[in-house]
Amino acid sequence: MKVLFAAPADGWDRWQGPLTRACPEMELCREGDPAGFDALIYAPGYPEDGGTLDFTPFTRSRVVQSLWAGVERIVTNPTLTQPLCRMVDPGLAQGMAEFCTGWALRAHLGMDRFAQDGKWRGGEVPPVASGRRVTVLGMGEMGRATAQALAGLGFQVTGWSASGRPVQGIEVLAGDQLDLALARAEILVCLLPDTAQTRDLLDLRKLALMPRGSWLINAGRGTLLPESDLLRALDLGRPGHAVLDVFRHEPLPQDHPFWQHPGVTVTPHIAAATRPETAAPVVAENLRRAMAGRPLLHMVDPSRGY
Amino acid sequence: MKVLFAAPADGWDRWQGPLTRACPEMELCREGDPAGFDALIYAPGYPEDGGTLDFTPFTRSRVVQSLWAGVERIVTNPTLTQPLCRMVDPGLAQGMAEFCTGWALRAHLGMDRFAQDGKWRGGEVPPVASGRRVTVLGMGEMGRATAQALAGLGFQVTGWSASGRPVQGIEVLAGDQLDLALARAEILVCLLPDTAQTRDLLDLRKLALMPRGSWLINAGRGTLLPESDLLRALDLGRPGHAVLDVFRHEPLPQDHPFWQHPGVTVTPHIAAATRPETAAPVVAENLRRAMAGRPLLHMVDPSRGY
Repeated sequence: MKVLFAAPADGWDRWQGPLTRACPEMELCREGDPAGFDALIYAPGYPEDGGTLDFTPFTRSRVVQSLWAGVERIVTNPTLTQPLCRMVDPGLAQGMAEFCTGWALRAHLGMDRFAQDGKWRGGEVPPVASGRRVTVLGMGEMGRATAQALAGLGFQVTGWSASGRPVQGIEVLAGDQLDLALARAEILVCLLPDTAQTRDLLDLRKLALMPRGSWLINAGRGTLLPESDLLRALDLGRPGHAVLDVFRHEPLPQDHPFWQHPGVTVTPHIAAATRPETAAPVVAENLRRAMAGRPLLHMVDPSRGY
Repeated sequence: MKVLFAAPADGWDRWQGPLTRACPEMELCREGDPAGFDALIYAPGYPEDGGTLDFTPFTRSRVVQSLWAGVERIVTNPTLTQPLCRMVDPGLAQGMAEFCTGWALRAHLGMDRFAQDGKWRGGEVPPVASGRRVTVLGMGEMGRATAQALAGLGFQVTGWSASGRPVQGIEVLAGDQLDLALARAEILVCLLPDTAQTRDLLDLRKLALMPRGSWLINAGRGTLLPESDLLRALDLGRPGHAVLDVFRHEPLPQDHPFWQHPGVTVTPHIAAATRPETAAPVVAENLRRAMAGRPLLHMVDPSRGY
């Protein structure tokens, strides 16, 4: 099977090893006669001259496997007639749980208080995790993985979702109990999608329900918080600190007040990254299915756009 | 039962309540005739005039219960003939596991690379924990709790101890496999006691076995590392970063090069804080055992030194 790696060059270094290990029977190329390829592994930005890829000459290709979960820049390409598949990386929920757990521990342990700067200062040692209350907003795949990782470390975890649907080992509050979920949150982890119901959900009134000095970690979507409300809430100390991985406009503009605020930590939307090591086996499985004429995984419905 | 609280005064405020609640039948004193005490609860720094406690006159005492996990400053007291018991605080192992897990996640996630300072920069996202190798040196209570917490998050954990005694769910290497344990350590967690065998164990030759850019977290004892060797090893990038909670001299002197080295994070010996609420019931149990002539918990073997 001959496959074109049709993605920007910086992806080649990251993907080549994992892809060829996951699918050793594949000949993975960076160029060649379009009519000679059985499949494409594709990401926007290819070709790198800034043009848009013309899928027309790839007459033999049975599948276009996207390297990205979001395909909104691919479905709109009018030359695409081959079946298109989204990236679904099983490492994504795991990586998200690790990101949120790492920052929750940093908050819990008072790491920023104890990592010292030239002067030895003691201070009150934190309780163990069983004395610390953490709330996770959003009980989708990522919220559940995060809540369970935190519970496994001994934290008192409360989950919250619109439905309140039960989750193994986690107390889950439902829609109208959001105020209670926030009042409990010494550490609040936000993993909600961007929907009409979640947009601007955590406004100043809601944020002010959080305990004084609490930490807010948002790794879901930036639209959850009116940014000016968060800045005002931080100035009131409820929450005391915010770790933000997602924003209304990304990259976060250079003059944005979040950069300078001492109560804000900015991370560059890396909590939910696709990892070649865990994603490549899924790509390999799909390429094999395409070769064998079996149903493809994660195929995009062009009429829905995802 | 009459017990002398032979520890510096600042401990009294923290311990008095939890100890008397856990052991109401005990008469806990801060002074009195040495021959009148059934037991001592002891921490170095007593008496507070700077002298060393003479255990000789405590002729009736059946046990010396240390308030500290580390007993190297007690076993070396030549006047000690009573049985000595280490502090094993169930909250201490838990707190230590949280400290080490929190810093291991900080290393794993590249938090210091991604928590940004006014400029949005992407970068290579870490593998998930199952692609990250962590070695824990020392498989005592704290090492085991830490190794198990890390394994629970999915890390590839290797344990190492002199005996190589098996630990549930962890591959444990034995004494002569230290080089292998170090070569695997993308993150190295050191939880070894201070003994003749561990002193200066991680010298420059050993440190240089660690992978380039790896992290070393020492929360055991400062004597494990010749400090100048660690500084040289850091300059070679093996390890790339050290988080040090313990030192040969504490508080770390103001002019110590660790304070200024960009590859060193200093924390003020807070990883292994004993929490009176969780520790007092263990002390109470041991005092009762001593009174009843039953086997003591966590008794120190003077020939091993711990």
